[in-house]
Amino acid sequence: MRTIEWVDGYVDVIDQTVLPQQRRVALHTVSEVVDAIQRMVVRGAPALGALGALGVALAAARSADRGYDPDAVRTDARRIAEARPTAAHLRWAVQQVLPAVTKGPAAVLSAATALVEADVRACATLSRLGAALLRSYVGDRPMVLHTHCNAGALACVEWGTALGVVRALHADSLVRMVVVGETRPLLQGSRITATELAQLGVPHQVVVDAAGPGLIAGGQVDAVIVGADRIAANYDVVNKVGTYPLALAAARAGIPFVVAAPTATIDTNTLTGAAVTIEYRDPDEVLLVGGWRMAPAESAALNPAFDVTPADLVTAIVTESRVIEPARSAEPAGAEQAVTVPAMRMVGAS
Amino acid sequence: MRTIEWVDGYVDVIDQTVLPQQRRVALHTVSEVVDAIQRMVVRGAPALGALGALGVALAAARSADRGYDPDAVRTDARRIAEARPTAAHLRWAVQQVLPAVTKGPAAVLSAATALVEADVRACATLSRLGAALLRSYVGDRPMVLHTHCNAGALACVEWGTALGVVRALHADSLVRMVVVGETRPLLQGSRITATELAQLGVPHQVVVDAAGPGLIAGGQVDAVIVGADRIAANYDVVNKVGTYPLALAAARAGIPFVVAAPTATIDTNTLTGAAVTIEYRDPDEVLLVGGWRMAPAESAALNPAFDVTPADLVTAIVTESRVIEPARSAEPAGAEQAVTVPAMRMVGAS
Repeated sequence: MRTIEWVDGYVDVIDQTVLPQQRRVALHTVSEVVDAIQRMVVRGAPALGALGALGVALAAARSADRGYDPDAVRTDARRIAEARPTAAHLRWAVQQVLPAVTKGPAAVLSAATALVEADVRACATLSRLGAALLRSYVGDRPMVLHTHCNAGALACVEWGTALGVVRALHADSLVRMVVVGETRPLLQGSRITATELAQLGVPHQVVVDAAGPGLIAGGQVDAVIVGADRIAANYDVVNKVGTYPLALAAARAGIPFVVAAPTATIDTNTLTGAAVTIEYRDPDEVLLVGGWRMAPAESAALNPAFDVTPADLVTAIVTESRVIEPARSAEPAGAEQAVTVPAMRMVGAS
Repeated sequence: MRTIEWVDGYVDVIDQTVLPQQRRVALHTVSEVVDAIQRMVVRGAPALGALGALGVALAAARSADRGYDPDAVRTDARRIAEARPTAAHLRWAVQQVLPAVTKGPAAVLSAATALVEADVRACATLSRLGAALLRSYVGDRPMVLHTHCNAGALACVEWGTALGVVRALHADSLVRMVVVGETRPLLQGSRITATELAQLGVPHQVVVDAAGPGLIAGGQVDAVIVGADRIAANYDVVNKVGTYPLALAAARAGIPFVVAAPTATIDTNTLTGAAVTIEYRDPDEVLLVGGWRMAPAESAALNPAFDVTPADLVTAIVTESRVIEPARSAEPAGAEQAVTVPAMRMVGAS
């Protein structure tokens, strides 16, 4: 079952906001696509890429309904690309299908579909590559992995990135336990990642986000594996808020901190993590818990959706074609201001 | 208004589980005291100390109702002392009043009351001392402070420890903003700390716990100030889960990480943080959010209540009588296994 599908002139998606409840939503217009991205009905780098590409196909189809206008489609494409400022993969995917806009709606749909299929293959490949890498780091034994947010099948089209790696290791009976950060405020960890792991039969324990670093310090975790929303040219990693503390703890404990993300997540136009505009979301996501306001009426909240993990804390970035090991060549703590171009180590991709 | 009071043969406390709603509970028996400690109706090191001492007074009074039996009172005292394994101050306070048990209920009540009064004075003194220390670290300018959980008046009897420091700085117009970690799973930050800050008129912003380290890395915080549940002989600090990631981030960003706690929180019988048994609480505190189960039925959870911040990450510990600066003399990262006895710097206590 795919999380995002083109169905006869509209885009059909799983509504991630109500998970573990299963509900599919039909997106018929560009405004509905933009809204689905902003409300995080669809989230996760590869899934956003797929929706971005199919969203442009939808814009082209709607434009064709009233006499095809390539300029209007390009304007719509820009709206989609900018719906979430931090999502590099979304912007990249929209740009990939843009050249087809001049050729008409059928060409756009064909380009979008090709991109989605390539993404499905990329996730499967990087999952195998990441599993091999973790075996090389941790050893051929059942391991305890810590993950955060959701970089699983539901964040992609059909197969996960970070959870794809877990899935590949689980297939070889190499997962003893997955520690899942609940991922406040929207609880993608407990709602989405735990659901996927339960369906796959992978043993897992949900923790509050604050608990991860202490468990890592206590020797209870073998490696951290997460996805990424954007990776800068110097390999600073922008991912769900709460990723950075896990990287700090992993570095101090001397365990691997591995990022699994498609190549398109690496944005060579962003020199360092400091250049990324962090999205601040609605304070009510923090202040309301389960629909109830927890803090007094006078209290404000600050709701950054992402944080930046400096490259020197990143043991490895695994894409569908290579393994990059930023920490190996990076300067020690404090050096993340400088733009470094770490050496790359190729690990044969299948 | 005091959070814990002896009223004519029973102990009257504020129920912290329903805050910001105001509700007082009357504890008439030792079992009710133990239950109030375990369910965190009363929490926070100084408040637990006060309740521990008055709990022994209650045990003595109840014993006197049916012919006073010092041995039975001592058994009750042990039950109270062990109600929360990590709480050093609770155990210490119970031990302080134990010698009076042979002298009868009036002597126990008198010892307990003296301890509570001394604690109130200690919190006020350490607050002034901590404020002076932060001014020396940050400079005489309005500062942004990050705190976690609740070490305010409600965690004490009448005046806070970490929030007491904030209060003392606020009196001198030196608080620009307090960033408050919401403190999942029980949300003491948004429910209790935000309530206290709102009542005091201190500007504050609630954040999810995962956001603190990223804000610190982004240069948005001048200092971290927290309380402690127990401090080991080597100055490893045991505090609410989520304290350690803030210390990691503060050390990397080069901002002060300050712990405000009464002397009795320092447990010289605990050599290092590694020797502390961390309390694991009910998994449902994690899995249920606002009364709703977030993860699927098959999902387990791990719910450690505390984490250990190694001494080398602790810029200063402020008690009512001195300032200790563990990081200044500690070994670099990784050295927390060894028992070091860092130098102490005396800062004149008033």
